[in-house]
Amino acid sequence: MPKLNICAFRELTAEQRLSAEIAIVANPNPAELAALPNLQWVQSLWAGVERLLTEVPQSDLKIVRMNDPQLAASMAEAVLAWSLYLHRDMPAYKKQQSAKIWKQHTTPLTADRTVSILGLGSLGLCAANRLTANGFSVFGWSRSEVNLEGIKTFNGEADLHALLSRTDILVVLLPLTMATSGLLNEQTLALLPRGASVINFARGPILDETALINHLDSGHLAHAVLDVFSEEPLPKSNPLWTHADVTVLPHISARTNKITASKIASGNISSFLQTGEIPQSVSRKHGY
Amino acid sequence: MPKLNICAFRELTAEQRLSAEIAIVANPNPAELAALPNLQWVQSLWAGVERLLTEVPQSDLKIVRMNDPQLAASMAEAVLAWSLYLHRDMPAYKKQQSAKIWKQHTTPLTADRTVSILGLGSLGLCAANRLTANGFSVFGWSRSEVNLEGIKTFNGEADLHALLSRTDILVVLLPLTMATSGLLNEQTLALLPRGASVINFARGPILDETALINHLDSGHLAHAVLDVFSEEPLPKSNPLWTHADVTVLPHISARTNKITASKIASGNISSFLQTGEIPQSVSRKHGY
Repeated sequence: MPKLNICAFRELTAEQRLSAEIAIVANPNPAELAALPNLQWVQSLWAGVERLLTEVPQSDLKIVRMNDPQLAASMAEAVLAWSLYLHRDMPAYKKQQSAKIWKQHTTPLTADRTVSILGLGSLGLCAANRLTANGFSVFGWSRSEVNLEGIKTFNGEADLHALLSRTDILVVLLPLTMATSGLLNEQTLALLPRGASVINFARGPILDETALINHLDSGHLAHAVLDVFSEEPLPKSNPLWTHADVTVLPHISARTNKITASKIASGNISSFLQTGEIPQSVSRKHGY
Repeated sequence: MPKLNICAFRELTAEQRLSAEIAIVANPNPAELAALPNLQWVQSLWAGVERLLTEVPQSDLKIVRMNDPQLAASMAEAVLAWSLYLHRDMPAYKKQQSAKIWKQHTTPLTADRTVSILGLGSLGLCAANRLTANGFSVFGWSRSEVNLEGIKTFNGEADLHALLSRTDILVVLLPLTMATSGLLNEQTLALLPRGASVINFARGPILDETALINHLDSGHLAHAVLDVFSEEPLPKSNPLWTHADVTVLPHISARTNKITASKIASGNISSFLQTGEIPQSVSRKHGY
């Protein structure tokens, strides 16, 4: 295998900038990538690569997303944890504790609680299976048709409406693309049944924050668990911080695991050095 | 099958009080049971029967506990839900939200998080299996020795100390008996590693509330999830309500399911009417 020379961007000489072939990035400054004219591909340490696709000037640059089973497992765990948080009424009991109110709520069986997952990529699939294994009734929605055991699947816009109308807990795991930006807005959120809740573990702009607040304030939606926002870190002036029916998380649903992600990135790079073939890269048409 | 005459206590005639053979109870006034001199056995709708054993004057009365798989499943779900609540740092993120702090914490793998269950009856076993299925490292402790697949088991007092010293999340599912009252006190809680948390879904008096508060205040323990208390409903003057590191729940971890519990109670009664044999009753020596 050829000898690798791995450098931090800020330590590259002018000559090295001209010759660098691969960049390993998380959430890079697009100008830094633009300063590497010989790049053949980029290994992202993140699963979501919308900034790389839209802000990096080299429009033909191949982007390889992080597709780490450990990341999917961590996300599935987060989806289960916060679905149970909503299922077992933890936000309501927290409010009651603040007011010293001792009041029991009836918890339905998980089989009677429908959790719908938007996005059935590796993260969505893993989450759907984890919820199914724990007894929830699970629906899934994706752009293209898929068949999954134990999970009722929907695809396309008409199906999205049908799914939303039957959802108790909506979990967003979609990539941010032209097609998904603003997908959950005043109109689509209105299709959820009264008392439904939303979990956004994908990207902030998929969910219209103002529409969400309106639906929470009107009592149409019960609660939102948000790990991603239109601006991150969430500015202190954003009303989501103090909304009684919003749980704010600092983008922690599925953090990159340094050990497993390093192995995957080095495996991809080794493979490229041996074969000359760039690992499977993101479709610019679909954005993931 | 003989014709059954089922009456609410307050509607019994004096004659019916003298002839009643079976009582179906949840948390009855002991004086009411004392007013039924011909009782042969009592069907409890609860799994915990410590009040029936200690406060009902008829000391030879047979008590049949509710042993409902649906109750065990509901408890296992609660144990999983609040173990994930602690595992995924939900209390810390809630505090951060109140202060508008955007800060990420590292979440270990569930395989590196040890949840120990005290009490391996039907509820404890079901909870242990559910946690194991979701990747946690699970220890179990019981009075008598048991062997379980995938769960390291401990028994006896010396073993309790060994278990506590290796526990991240301690889940109490013991019956309240002479042997378990005050089992978790200043000394035993001190055996938990610094930063451990406690979930009590069993009975309040098993856990010394003052000792718990001391260990939370000193920073030795991180958090407590309490569904049961020395007095219920929890009096408004109790400091647990407002403690920043305590989650107060109004005895909801596993509520009796009316449908499944009714079937089990009626099955027990039918069986007794057909065979004359009282269903398996509680050991007064062991208290469960």
